[in-house]
Amino acid sequence: MPLSTLLDLPGVTAQPEAATHGYVFNHTMIRVKDVAASLDFYTRVLGFTPVHRQVFEEAKFTIYYLMLRADRAAIPDDDAERLEWVLGQPGVLELTYNHGTEDDPDFHYHDGNGEPRGFGHLCVSVPDVHAACARFEALGVPFQKRLSDGRMKHIAFIKDPDGYWIEILQPARFVG
Amino acid sequence: MPLSTLLDLPGVTAQPEAATHGYVFNHTMIRVKDVAASLDFYTRVLGFTPVHRQVFEEAKFTIYYLMLRADRAAIPDDDAERLEWVLGQPGVLELTYNHGTEDDPDFHYHDGNGEPRGFGHLCVSVPDVHAACARFEALGVPFQKRLSDGRMKHIAFIKDPDGYWIEILQPARFVG
Repeated sequence: MPLSTLLDLPGVTAQPEAATHGYVFNHTMIRVKDVAASLDFYTRVLGFTPVHRQVFEEAKFTIYYLMLRADRAAIPDDDAERLEWVLGQPGVLELTYNHGTEDDPDFHYHDGNGEPRGFGHLCVSVPDVHAACARFEALGVPFQKRLSDGRMKHIAFIKDPDGYWIEILQPARFVG
Repeated sequence: MPLSTLLDLPGVTAQPEAATHGYVFNHTMIRVKDVAASLDFYTRVLGFTPVHRQVFEEAKFTIYYLMLRADRAAIPDDDAERLEWVLGQPGVLELTYNHGTEDDPDFHYHDGNGEPRGFGHLCVSVPDVHAACARFEALGVPFQKRLSDGRMKHIAFIKDPDGYWIEILQPARFVG
């Protein structure tokens, strides 16, 4: 479907209002039970960089902003400058950690894919999906769907420490 | 907290493995009940551009990839090329529409913020948070939290047609 047809679909405003210029889809926030486990997963397995941390002592939670593909030389060193910078970037992941949840063996978050459904997944695209999945297998990362499962052989889903699904795909010229 | 200290937090792999080079945090997927209502909201209120649509007739669902800040001149015209392009970009929003859900008055998705909790919100950063919130008020957009509500006077949360929370903030040099 050409872009012109997409812009003509029911509901679509073809020309964004000038007032929206400069709007940035900055981040997606998920809650995590054990922040050290999540930081390990997102930095070691997927290559994210933690760019900012903000502790809310009284409300007992901490937020972390992480970025993938961050050219570290571009990240400001000053804390306040770095926060301003990251909030203007697209493709940021925010982890919210409520203090102490990791100590409750019965505590777990909802991944959005069982009932009640809503949020579905995050997606990390990779240069070589077969190499990436072989690496995840070697690292012992749990899969929700391997490349070989089901009918869509070009995508996989791995799971983060809270069970959130992360789609893994390689940009390629398949058309549906 | 300096970046060097962030890279030293428990769990953090300070230097991403070379195998992760080229990984891109591409998209976040949410399910939407009435896709025309969601396309209206994301394109008219927030300025997103629908960049690709893929229909799965047999499985009865359709996915839409939307981008904010898209320089339209950079978007390939050819459908297959455009799909490959969008899957390599950061900051993409995927809407999944299961056909017919809009016809069931009792059907609704879970926003992740009531029990069971998990996913929290999307965030759009804006050049002027007061101007943006005044515009949302004028457009009749529902708020979860106005700038004047609560203690964090610099952030607001609006709601999309499914009730998903969208944080609105202006990058600024506040430090916690």
